[in-house]
Amino acid sequence: MRLYGALEAGGTKMVAAVFDENGEVVDREVFPTRTPGETMPELTVYFKRFPLAALGVASFGPVNLNRKSPTYGCITATPKLAWRNYPILSDFRDALGVPAGFDTDVNAAAIAETALGAGRGLENVLYVTVGTGVGGGLVINGKPVHGLIHSEIGHIRVQVSPDDPMPGGNCPYHGPCLEGMAAGPAIEKRWGVPARELPPEHPAWALESDYLAQLCATAMFTFSPERIILGGGVMQQEFLFPLIREKTLKLLNGYLCHPAVNNGLADYIVAPGLGTASGITGAYLLAREAVKE
Amino acid sequence: MRLYGALEAGGTKMVAAVFDENGEVVDREVFPTRTPGETMPELTVYFKRFPLAALGVASFGPVNLNRKSPTYGCITATPKLAWRNYPILSDFRDALGVPAGFDTDVNAAAIAETALGAGRGLENVLYVTVGTGVGGGLVINGKPVHGLIHSEIGHIRVQVSPDDPMPGGNCPYHGPCLEGMAAGPAIEKRWGVPARELPPEHPAWALESDYLAQLCATAMFTFSPERIILGGGVMQQEFLFPLIREKTLKLLNGYLCHPAVNNGLADYIVAPGLGTASGITGAYLLAREAVKE
Repeated sequence: MRLYGALEAGGTKMVAAVFDENGEVVDREVFPTRTPGETMPELTVYFKRFPLAALGVASFGPVNLNRKSPTYGCITATPKLAWRNYPILSDFRDALGVPAGFDTDVNAAAIAETALGAGRGLENVLYVTVGTGVGGGLVINGKPVHGLIHSEIGHIRVQVSPDDPMPGGNCPYHGPCLEGMAAGPAIEKRWGVPARELPPEHPAWALESDYLAQLCATAMFTFSPERIILGGGVMQQEFLFPLIREKTLKLLNGYLCHPAVNNGLADYIVAPGLGTASGITGAYLLAREAVKE
Repeated sequence: MRLYGALEAGGTKMVAAVFDENGEVVDREVFPTRTPGETMPELTVYFKRFPLAALGVASFGPVNLNRKSPTYGCITATPKLAWRNYPILSDFRDALGVPAGFDTDVNAAAIAETALGAGRGLENVLYVTVGTGVGGGLVINGKPVHGLIHSEIGHIRVQVSPDDPMPGGNCPYHGPCLEGMAAGPAIEKRWGVPARELPPEHPAWALESDYLAQLCATAMFTFSPERIILGGGVMQQEFLFPLIREKTLKLLNGYLCHPAVNNGLADYIVAPGLGTASGITGAYLLAREAVKE
């Protein structure tokens, strides 16, 4: 049976896994993200233990997804300086000698959710993770969206709530953009405790759902996804979903007519179908695509 | 030589044209938009004068683009009550007995600009018209985007400028959304004269470019088009383009790294390559697609 390597490359940890051709996880190991000089040999040794048909890399960004570019497959302007301009894809191809697929971690998650998760059967899906940052991956017309660079939907502007005790946000680039207002570190900085310690009745969550509803409404007006999937650590607070749906409806204000809207967005703004495995599963699907090419 | 009918169905006028298979306009006529009972027979008589291989309909919206829906090809929740729920596509198919393609007017314009205009050679293009309303059409991964409904990018929220003498906007649904702040009627209501009579040094244009820059930045962060094409009556004021580019760069604030950004967006935020003919040319391309199916 064919085996496929999958890597979800994050800023703090690297999740490496091996899938069989039925999509079952054969092995899985997590490595801390240090420098490329330290981390890449560990990952290479790990993957070399298996006779892989291909590797899929779902990487933290920004990355270069333009196949015609000489720096295709590089991590680009990341604040993690050791990884800036690092050619992660070509180094894996050289080290492992197998075909390798590549996309952002969030596009990989969107691919996996569309193929096997909460977006199954759809052609247009937005996946957003709300955690240490806010990032989004898009599948449109059945394929991941790259475009000029790739989605950076976490950096859209939001209207700051008059109730917000931290109206300046904490994004170093844009201050009060979505990530600057709604990512885990923004919540912790605003209230002085980690998000997961704030009870459901805390005012943090009214603010959080306000900002995430702006994300959902902007996506619906902009490219009209067939479903919005919200994952990541912050979205583990499941009571956020009804709040976000209700506030999104208020922002739409009756303008978009569709059964999904009439139904209160209950089947429209949803949790990932693959739980926390969307990204690594997407990396596996990238490996499967790489074999076909 | 094969002939193709093309209709750009607008809220105030219907542009009907006949193209030959080389894309040359053989005939063109404009009809006022009255009620379906009055206007459809005029259009049918017009198109029946030609031995058409197919018709393409680029319609004002909102429309139903879901081919699996029993109301596919209908105009839906338009404020023009006579046209609400009108099955424009199937009535044309019945009347003319030829295959007919269908999309929004702005998606058709995006298709035409991508195939033959300012987006030629690209796979991911945003076309926006700024006129009596603000509407956008998207081509992503080489195809027009429908999704849940279709883009209504004119209704994204914008941050209202503190200098705006009409901060409440004039969109009946969302007040100060993009359309409520930046469409031609909003400009006229705010300053008391039509947009085209305001000189380049009038403060109207600083505001206008501020709102349109928010549109551009939101699109870039959200789905990362490879080019943004701004058309419509308001964009006839060509001095708007450098203002919009400059303000978009300020909103990005160095976050997106790409040669198009480094180049000041000069080749990125551009006027339509087909002038005012994007929509009708898109309708012709929809007719060509309809023949293939």
